[in-house]
Amino acid sequence: MATLFTRIINREIPANIVYENEKVLAFQDIHPQAPHHVLIIPKTEIATLNDLDASTAPLVGEMFLAAKEIARTLGVDQDGYRVVMNCNRDGGQTVFHIHLHLLAGRSMHWPPG
Amino acid sequence: MATLFTRIINREIPANIVYENEKVLAFQDIHPQAPHHVLIIPKTEIATLNDLDASTAPLVGEMFLAAKEIARTLGVDQDGYRVVMNCNRDGGQTVFHIHLHLLAGRSMHWPPG
Repeated sequence: MATLFTRIINREIPANIVYENEKVLAFQDIHPQAPHHVLIIPKTEIATLNDLDASTAPLVGEMFLAAKEIARTLGVDQDGYRVVMNCNRDGGQTVFHIHLHLLAGRSMHWPPG
Repeated sequence: MATLFTRIINREIPANIVYENEKVLAFQDIHPQAPHHVLIIPKTEIATLNDLDASTAPLVGEMFLAAKEIARTLGVDQDGYRVVMNCNRDGGQTVFHIHLHLLAGRSMHWPPG
């Protein structure tokens, strides 16, 4: 069954899309935890970080290049930002299609949750 | 001037190293924020996430493959974990050599800082 994110990729449900290229899609988190809170996902469905392998790991690099571009577009690249990925229950993962949270627009605290 | 992390890579200062391959090194954070808190760094010095480009982005994939392996070795891959990278002041970056925080061994909270 397609995850929520695959349905966003397929334009079956709406999202506020902020960035897209051949490999990744990014859209606003519907429960933002900072003034800017964007989710960056690969268009290839990968359930968790444990499922990465040598063939799919480069997609994570693509997600980070997208994060850098989005931060620049938002004007937060110099002030700074945090990126977060959650794996399974203890990490707080709720959608089983890997996604990179980009949070910016305020000082992020420590620990990171 | 070499950052703290380059000095760890060069074995000029000690660290509790938990993983190493040709491209990345991982060691315990000296101020752990969870029962397991490991820092994963590329052996290539990259100051911030804003400095990533098409040639260096694959290193991020290598860092994530290392995270997956470390999580498996620690026995936390199934329960779960969180990975975090900070960029510049608002992100909370303190060492200007990119590093991936891997936190595990407890339920991580939301928001992530």
